Amino acid sequence: MDKIKVGIIGFGTVGSGTYKVLTENFQEIKNKTGLSFQVNKIADLNKELVVEKIGNADLYTDNINEVIEYSDIVVELIGGTTIAREVVEKALTKKKHVVTANKALIALYGKDLFALAEKNNIALMYEAAVAGGIPIIKTIREGLVGNKISWVVGILNGTTNYILSEMKNNGLSFETALKQAQELGYAEADPTFDIEGIDAAHKITILASIVFGIPLNFSETFVEGIRSLDLADVSYAEELGYRIKLLGIAKNNNNKIEIRVHPTLIPSSRLIANVDGPMNAILVNGNMVGPTLYYGAGAGSEATASAVVADIVDIGRLIHQNVIPLIPNYGFQENSLTHKNIANISEITSGFYLRIPIRDSSGVLANITKFFASKNISIDAMTQKESKSSIDQKTDVLIVVKLAKESIIDEIIKDIQSKEFCLSKIIKIRLELLNK
Amino acid sequence: MDKIKVGIIGFGTVGSGTYKVLTENFQEIKNKTGLSFQVNKIADLNKELVVEKIGNADLYTDNINEVIEYSDIVVELIGGTTIAREVVEKALTKKKHVVTANKALIALYGKDLFALAEKNNIALMYEAAVAGGIPIIKTIREGLVGNKISWVVGILNGTTNYILSEMKNNGLSFETALKQAQELGYAEADPTFDIEGIDAAHKITILASIVFGIPLNFSETFVEGIRSLDLADVSYAEELGYRIKLLGIAKNNNNKIEIRVHPTLIPSSRLIANVDGPMNAILVNGNMVGPTLYYGAGAGSEATASAVVADIVDIGRLIHQNVIPLIPNYGFQENSLTHKNIANISEITSGFYLRIPIRDSSGVLANITKFFASKNISIDAMTQKESKSSIDQKTDVLIVVKLAKESIIDEIIKDIQSKEFCLSKIIKIRLELLNK
Repeated sequence: MDKIKVGIIGFGTVGSGTYKVLTENFQEIKNKTGLSFQVNKIADLNKELVVEKIGNADLYTDNINEVIEYSDIVVELIGGTTIAREVVEKALTKKKHVVTANKALIALYGKDLFALAEKNNIALMYEAAVAGGIPIIKTIREGLVGNKISWVVGILNGTTNYILSEMKNNGLSFETALKQAQELGYAEADPTFDIEGIDAAHKITILASIVFGIPLNFSETFVEGIRSLDLADVSYAEELGYRIKLLGIAKNNNNKIEIRVHPTLIPSSRLIANVDGPMNAILVNGNMVGPTLYYGAGAGSEATASAVVADIVDIGRLIHQNVIPLIPNYGFQENSLTHKNIANISEITSGFYLRIPIRDSSGVLANITKFFASKNISIDAMTQKESKSSIDQKTDVLIVVKLAKESIIDEIIKDIQSKEFCLSKIIKIRLELLNK
Repeated sequence: MDKIKVGIIGFGTVGSGTYKVLTENFQEIKNKTGLSFQVNKIADLNKELVVEKIGNADLYTDNINEVIEYSDIVVELIGGTTIAREVVEKALTKKKHVVTANKALIALYGKDLFALAEKNNIALMYEAAVAGGIPIIKTIREGLVGNKISWVVGILNGTTNYILSEMKNNGLSFETALKQAQELGYAEADPTFDIEGIDAAHKITILASIVFGIPLNFSETFVEGIRSLDLADVSYAEELGYRIKLLGIAKNNNNKIEIRVHPTLIPSSRLIANVDGPMNAILVNGNMVGPTLYYGAGAGSEATASAVVADIVDIGRLIHQNVIPLIPNYGFQENSLTHKNIANISEITSGFYLRIPIRDSSGVLANITKFFASKNISIDAMTQKESKSSIDQKTDVLIVVKLAKESIIDEIIKDIQSKEFCLSKIIKIRLELLNK
């Protein structure tokens, strides 16, 4: 079969981008594959939208079942986890291959959907669900297949990376940078999913599952967004040689798996620290290849569609030769998935940056260091900022600890917080050196 | 077939690394693929080396034919283009899948070898031939399959990137930096292949062929190394906001293909400009996904072996399901290869940095600019350095042109060179903005 029928369900940003890639690059893709990928059905609630974008209603249908019935590959680009889930389940049950860009769907319900696909010997592919146009799923499941991966960290959300870049480069407050991101279309009117870290958490949950071979389980992923991030800490971090990024982190630490999203200080000299604006980047540490990094657009109509189309083509090649999927959904055989415990955030070990607002008086620094010494935590850098006012003597003490258990840092914070010299809430931001 | 027999021919750095990855990560790879990849034969001229590295001679043979006969996959890691070529031809003829890390072999003889593999429905894979552990061949042929690629540029040689990094960061001369690279094992005793750009040229030739779908033809690749690069120009470039990298460049420019390797000024703000030390990075510009970048170790035993093993696993999955290769050798169908002309270096358009050594006197700058104006070339930046000596008034004029045809720049250089105020050879280094 040289002609592959593609049905698109959901014709928003990514759906129309997918149509564009498949039509404008039709000949290029045919030159590469020898196959003709033809969009033969498009379903969307909004018929006008389809007509507006492609000029006619020839391919339009309001009947999802029709798309499933008449396509070799069903492309789910509705988003959300209700109708999208039904569509994918239905398609897989009817033994139709599925491509989706839906990170929430995979992170929350991937486990069952993968099992359903496997049962039916059908491909369920989701390259576009993580880091848009960067082929990171293929890279991890295939390109780095010879490696045991010890950790993966990623800038997985362009909106927040844009905001953090503006705060750092132009000294904007979080609120101002967010407003600017909204004006430029980098952030949605309701930016909650992005700035609270939920979008990045969906993505790191998926990455964790394929680097470690663990079942998808979004509920155990720790999430902390950037909403309460203060410009002062962005500046202080720079002075100390670090940059703050919202990172998704998945780490195999003494057989407990850490999966977490939070603002993180990383050394400014690292390549990934220099990823600015609304871009994505993923750093993967393999036991044989060492660290490798992948960078590109993490969102946008055509960039995301590029990943959708890569999946479509992969499936097309299988259909053409009548082969069942060669790569298991997790990148691991179902019977080889491991059920390691996910670490609670209090159990993790990482670096920490603390900002302690104090009233300057003699003995305060010595007092503070005592609390660390008593818990056997060594301080790697300590700076007392000059007091801005000579009247109230208010100032900040900055502390960098390169490795400690979070629960112990929390105890120290609690102790210091209770002292009179500590004027307000201590700011704690995690820190990763990313050096093996 | 769940057991895949792997024969390794050539047990040097990459050969022994491949053995290590396949044995140490045996279970990890089995968990991922359900397959057992077993090294069953190792051939090398040096039996002692094999015994030294794996502790016994059980797998050793001095008979290459034996390796080919008893293996499902033959891994050619001899290097060079004589015996290696015979081995690969013999294996393909005997319908054995081949994996190689041999860039020279592919760049020079890939055309015929690809045809031979295709004729026999056999896989010939070469991920490790370009950029070591970075899965760039897979990324281009599969992950970015939906894109028309307009250009690819890469830091493809770790030795020269290490030298350039040392020149920039520590002010070392080329000779001192080279010596240091040799001491650290980043450069070989005879560094010609690396510093003359030949190694990078092999790799960009391969990349050009798979991004544009053109037959491999190494002889038309333009090569200029870094041996004559002066520290002064490295420093001047930094002052102007640029960094000098040895880049492999493949560009589709008005239907002529440019394939070239040379020292290149690129804006320091670009992510790829921040790739320091003996690392590799490739920047690919797809018409849908935009620019994406891939970074990692470009050499080394285990890093390169990581790529070799990825190919072995890909082939193992094909063997297991009894499928012929899904991805054509060039990433394009043989009958869709295009035979575009390769541009001569004099025909290319790019940016240029010129350093003109002059004796300072009134009217010289005006005189110089006249030559550019007369050829309708606009100067984007011009700086006259302060004369180091007030006696001889010798100094440098630096000129940046953002876009010009090389032959015209050469005419201007010739004109200026003939003037009395021009004291010695004008230095010309190409410049790329990398902005679409």
